[in-house]
Amino acid sequence: MNGLSPLSVQEIMASDPAHGPVARAQEWTAGAAYVIDRFVPLGEAAVPITDLGLVRADAVYDVVSVSRGQFFRLEDHQARFARSRERMKLSSPFVQAAEAALLNELVARTGLKDAYVWWAVTRGANPPLPGDRLHAERFQNRFYAFVIPYVFIKDDAVRQAGIHLHVSNDYIRIPANAIDPRAKNFCSLDLNMSLMEAGAAGAEWSVLTDGNNVLTEAPGSNIFVVREDRIMTPELGCLEGITRLTALELCGEIGLNVEVGTVTVDDLLTADEAFLTSSAGGILPISTVNGRPICQGSGPVSTRIHNLYWEKRWAGWHGTPVDYEAVN
Amino acid sequence: MNGLSPLSVQEIMASDPAHGPVARAQEWTAGAAYVIDRFVPLGEAAVPITDLGLVRADAVYDVVSVSRGQFFRLEDHQARFARSRERMKLSSPFVQAAEAALLNELVARTGLKDAYVWWAVTRGANPPLPGDRLHAERFQNRFYAFVIPYVFIKDDAVRQAGIHLHVSNDYIRIPANAIDPRAKNFCSLDLNMSLMEAGAAGAEWSVLTDGNNVLTEAPGSNIFVVREDRIMTPELGCLEGITRLTALELCGEIGLNVEVGTVTVDDLLTADEAFLTSSAGGILPISTVNGRPICQGSGPVSTRIHNLYWEKRWAGWHGTPVDYEAVN
Repeated sequence: MNGLSPLSVQEIMASDPAHGPVARAQEWTAGAAYVIDRFVPLGEAAVPITDLGLVRADAVYDVVSVSRGQFFRLEDHQARFARSRERMKLSSPFVQAAEAALLNELVARTGLKDAYVWWAVTRGANPPLPGDRLHAERFQNRFYAFVIPYVFIKDDAVRQAGIHLHVSNDYIRIPANAIDPRAKNFCSLDLNMSLMEAGAAGAEWSVLTDGNNVLTEAPGSNIFVVREDRIMTPELGCLEGITRLTALELCGEIGLNVEVGTVTVDDLLTADEAFLTSSAGGILPISTVNGRPICQGSGPVSTRIHNLYWEKRWAGWHGTPVDYEAVN
Repeated sequence: MNGLSPLSVQEIMASDPAHGPVARAQEWTAGAAYVIDRFVPLGEAAVPITDLGLVRADAVYDVVSVSRGQFFRLEDHQARFARSRERMKLSSPFVQAAEAALLNELVARTGLKDAYVWWAVTRGANPPLPGDRLHAERFQNRFYAFVIPYVFIKDDAVRQAGIHLHVSNDYIRIPANAIDPRAKNFCSLDLNMSLMEAGAAGAEWSVLTDGNNVLTEAPGSNIFVVREDRIMTPELGCLEGITRLTALELCGEIGLNVEVGTVTVDDLLTADEAFLTSSAGGILPISTVNGRPICQGSGPVSTRIHNLYWEKRWAGWHGTPVDYEAVN
């Protein structure tokens, strides 16, 4: 394996002979879902139109990935989900073990070896008495989940070349004193609009500031900036990403000095390297920022973190094997 | 009619002999919906679980009320919806006339004379190629709508007594440079959490500031503050409410000096009167703020605006009669 070239999707997803869905009923292989109180194939999974999770984005969620038949850091995702719920006064019908069993069964029903596993609790419907809307305990919160095949946000060629990143001018990230981003939630219109802005500017992804030139987070991702032997990532105004945590651990392991603190747009523009981290994309190197080159392709640190991330995952690091027989 | 006593729900909703649903199939009277491409009873209306309108709150919407068989300012709501869509690069399958016909048919299917009419366009599903997520035109936006019986957020006794309002300490309103509130959208976790905070403080509704002691908006509502012959409402950081617009017109009509500008928490605490405006609640007088009395019951200006609002609506002002025969 070439240490300077990121592992390819082919390597990641096809080199394992066990890769690919095991034989399952056709209707489940495209995806499986759990809606309030039952398992359904993804194509039948829907949320009642008056659910406050939709009409008021009143919900929290989490996403864990499965690679080669193993959940990655499932317990960390579950612990974060519990913290998100607590911050937003949302309750779940499931204790942690039951939640893990449910997510396992969803993956098992699809037979997918590489999957994206999403689950949420919404506020539910408005209670009959309007006055009850002011009291969290008067709502019947609802649990939803779905599993779909894992798709890299950016493919091999893009990951190897590094992406063109756009620092949004038009949108700041929702500040933490409006909605705390540590509670992973649906309110992402700012993030999604910044993607359109980036697309119009010819870029491939966006990152948002707090309005004072300080970086916060990118859509679904955290950002890391490398300069000499230092590596920096924002402390505030961003999700406490599990892949961010993983990258921090890997940086420590390879002897980089990690700083979790204030990272400015200037830090990014003058970086040696930079990358994004997410459950949906792993480690995603950045080559240009606002059209200005910062690194030729994936830089050495980014590539090393990228490959370590996948190699260690496949070796079972923080892994929970999916039990594919656990289908009731 | 007593000019100092707000009209009651009974007066508003039952004094008209035409009030109440006309005979319709049972399944439609609880509510009707339109989901992507078809009419369904409300109980069957649901949004696919992977719709970005849910998982990313990537959507805009609007709500118009029907009272005594008439839409109120339907065209103004439709024009605002079109502006919301434009700001968020969302498209609708329906031109304005077709949209109006669809909303009319939904109300007609329920037979409701007093209804809450909600409609939205969501971003839809993610396109198959991840790179397409950066281009608005590569999404198939989806149209959803539903009609349910009109329920006053606060009943007669509460409206007559005035509500206890809580100025949120824990949440600021999402600022306009993150998500422009003039585009009516789902991202309301800040607003909903502030309701829980208000409930815990023994209050009945909340209002949010911008973090600098300047009032923005309340959940689903705009706020007005009356002092002597002046009446003030926030200019920025809030929805351009249609009931707000109506209240501004009525204030002008009765000779008040209207100021649309900066309104501080101190302005509210030292007001002679204050009220909230919304399509879901009409005019809602405020009696206390953070436990401090500002007005004994509904004040004279609030009551006058409240009653004028309903009297003029019933007389057909800005009204569009529902065609109850238009059911395909």
